[in-house]
Amino acid sequence: MSRFERHVFTCINERDESDARGCCATRGGVDVHGWFKAEFKARNWKGRMRANKAGCLDACEFGPTVVVYPEGVWYSPRSREDVQAICDRHLEAGEVVEDLVIPGLG
Amino acid sequence: MSRFERHVFTCINERDESDARGCCATRGGVDVHGWFKAEFKARNWKGRMRANKAGCLDACEFGPTVVVYPEGVWYSPRSREDVQAICDRHLEAGEVVEDLVIPGLG
Repeated sequence: MSRFERHVFTCINERDESDARGCCATRGGVDVHGWFKAEFKARNWKGRMRANKAGCLDACEFGPTVVVYPEGVWYSPRSREDVQAICDRHLEAGEVVEDLVIPGLG
Repeated sequence: MSRFERHVFTCINERDESDARGCCATRGGVDVHGWFKAEFKARNWKGRMRANKAGCLDACEFGPTVVVYPEGVWYSPRSREDVQAICDRHLEAGEVVEDLVIPGLG
């Protein structure tokens, strides 16, 4: 069995303002990562789940970008409620939260 | 099918020197990430595999720490040759490189 039941990576990559792709940092990536950390702490998930910062996940235009392993599901949560939905329905219950999935990323 | 066949995260977290755990940054994490990037480029793996920087993976004392998804295998590569072995044997061929696995992390 893998070390963590589920491992959540949130892009916090910061690009120069001149870059047309934009970046997850300005799209709220740092907040999203912080919300995952706060939810994990509140749920006592230490050792069971892990929330990690990540560098560029190559999906800048869809950001803030999150990928959940081992399933490899790509999300773009925009609010604390979105993060809570991913925690409740995917991380805890194992269901993909279809309305937060980034279309086309599998 | 997931977006990437395999997704490699390397910790580049930097801690204060006073921290007894040490950190992956001083244990070579930045070099290891760079070696993965260079190998992926040389192998034309863009779009198929991805090498990412990660924040602290909570395995500081075993660093430099790498985790490969979707399998969730934890490695501590110390050299370019170690990184090449992970590329050849795990990422390409799907075999776990047992002698580079961090014991006990699953």
